[in-house]
Amino acid sequence: MAHNKVGVVGFIGLGAMGMGMAASLLRAGLDVRGFDVNPAAVESFRTAGGTAAASAAQAATGADALIIMTLNAEQADDVLFGSGAAAEALRSSASIQGGPLVMLCSTVKPVYAQQTAARLEALGIHYLDAPVSGGVARAAEGSLSFMASGSEAAFTLAQPLLDALAAQVYRMGDVAGQGSAMKLANQVLAGIHIAAAAEAVAFGAKLGIDPSQMYDVICHSAGASWMFENRVPHILAGDYTPRSAIEIWIKDLGIILETASQNRFPLPMSAAAHQLFMMAAASGLGRLDDSSVVKVFEKIADFRIIAQE
Amino acid sequence: MAHNKVGVVGFIGLGAMGMGMAASLLRAGLDVRGFDVNPAAVESFRTAGGTAAASAAQAATGADALIIMTLNAEQADDVLFGSGAAAEALRSSASIQGGPLVMLCSTVKPVYAQQTAARLEALGIHYLDAPVSGGVARAAEGSLSFMASGSEAAFTLAQPLLDALAAQVYRMGDVAGQGSAMKLANQVLAGIHIAAAAEAVAFGAKLGIDPSQMYDVICHSAGASWMFENRVPHILAGDYTPRSAIEIWIKDLGIILETASQNRFPLPMSAAAHQLFMMAAASGLGRLDDSSVVKVFEKIADFRIIAQE
Repeated sequence: MAHNKVGVVGFIGLGAMGMGMAASLLRAGLDVRGFDVNPAAVESFRTAGGTAAASAAQAATGADALIIMTLNAEQADDVLFGSGAAAEALRSSASIQGGPLVMLCSTVKPVYAQQTAARLEALGIHYLDAPVSGGVARAAEGSLSFMASGSEAAFTLAQPLLDALAAQVYRMGDVAGQGSAMKLANQVLAGIHIAAAAEAVAFGAKLGIDPSQMYDVICHSAGASWMFENRVPHILAGDYTPRSAIEIWIKDLGIILETASQNRFPLPMSAAAHQLFMMAAASGLGRLDDSSVVKVFEKIADFRIIAQE
Repeated sequence: MAHNKVGVVGFIGLGAMGMGMAASLLRAGLDVRGFDVNPAAVESFRTAGGTAAASAAQAATGADALIIMTLNAEQADDVLFGSGAAAEALRSSASIQGGPLVMLCSTVKPVYAQQTAARLEALGIHYLDAPVSGGVARAAEGSLSFMASGSEAAFTLAQPLLDALAAQVYRMGDVAGQGSAMKLANQVLAGIHIAAAAEAVAFGAKLGIDPSQMYDVICHSAGASWMFENRVPHILAGDYTPRSAIEIWIKDLGIILETASQNRFPLPMSAAAHQLFMMAAASGLGRLDDSSVVKVFEKIADFRIIAQE
């Protein structure tokens, strides 16, 4: 018997973000079948009360909706149309009225979202272009921000999923790509602001200003940013445990610069920030917190921002 | 008879910021003698209830304190030690106990503040390194932020002035230069954030996102900054009436990069922002609002962010 509300969800990509999101879906009472290329992540999801799937195709088989939270578009594409064969599994087995849904939450190029939507829609599968913002903690709480675009039908199908995952859904338009474009514009600023925070703190320290006092002044001045307020405490504490890693910015600013290049559009600030994160990765900091980009300045100029204990 | 509280103030530099500050001092009941190289500004100050001075030296003669709010260090130096001869006038005529005060509020290199303090202290003049933040409206209200450093004696003398001018005084240390260093660190961020806001809005618009919706999303996301929230409305309104001009950033980021260069310290993000403001000035936008840096992207890529009415 055909139903019209999403109840069974395949979830692909149980990394730090995906695991929290999948757990939020379980809490909302959805039947979630999780898969990840890392078997330990699948096992951990099963322990948390989810259903373990042995492959992307198995997670998609019989599902009403498939959520993808892979690292990048290449992995998402392999899940859907490559070795994962999830699009075909979803299409051939879904019983939901009007057809199933794919919701891609990874940060991808707008043109990839457009092409994937067209390819899936040709198979009778709805598509929601649904990148997220908010980080691991908010993923686990089900309070992410979504920057989403897609057809009315896609939004209607996605509603129970968004209810479980989102504190805020920005509807960016009725075609795939606009959600991803909004995400990229936000990442332009977020990436630049982290690099700028590192540069300003390092420069101020070099000039002899106390970094803690600098933090207090700037948080109350025209130089303030969300990223400055959020990341500089990691620098002050010397704690580079990754909440969001340097490598994320190599990737996201890389997607941004490639998208801009395909549109023949110059992004000089983003390019400078990308190079700073590249210097950090070249210094062996890739897996550390993104605030560790400040260590590039310490290394180059051979000084310490915070005196060693 | 010697007194110990500042009552008579010379004020040099009656531009948009200086005029508001001098008016705030008048409102606080201080006797203010104003001078500017532009006679119309002096006349306008006289009309507002101030005392007009015919020269910097005249403004300084008999004053307890001299406030300088010139465009840059070169002008301040000319006021004090060059054609203005104000340091000598102040030294030879002051009757305040312990000696008079010079308070320099312009954005200058920390090393200039240090050198000027030493030069004035050798003449028996106290020095407060006192750059400000907050813009023209807060200057007129007497609610600026000061990032100040200097001796205890300089702060004590400056107290009635700071009471009239400041909502917030950050005491950055007991030697000149630390206030200016803090100001530069803040300007690094403020300048980069304006350039980044322009780049992100232009890129988003190029990708087809509605700029007003982008503004709303980013103000609530990790890409937010004080400058983004404050300046992007100018872009959305297409209103480039200068509140703070492109030329201010040519100057301030120029001071920052020169200071960094003298310290052999790399600032790649600041350098990229400086070049964007330079492109704006090269495009004839120098006297317009700093948010007009977005027009560099419009001009280069030959498109409009906001559709023409």
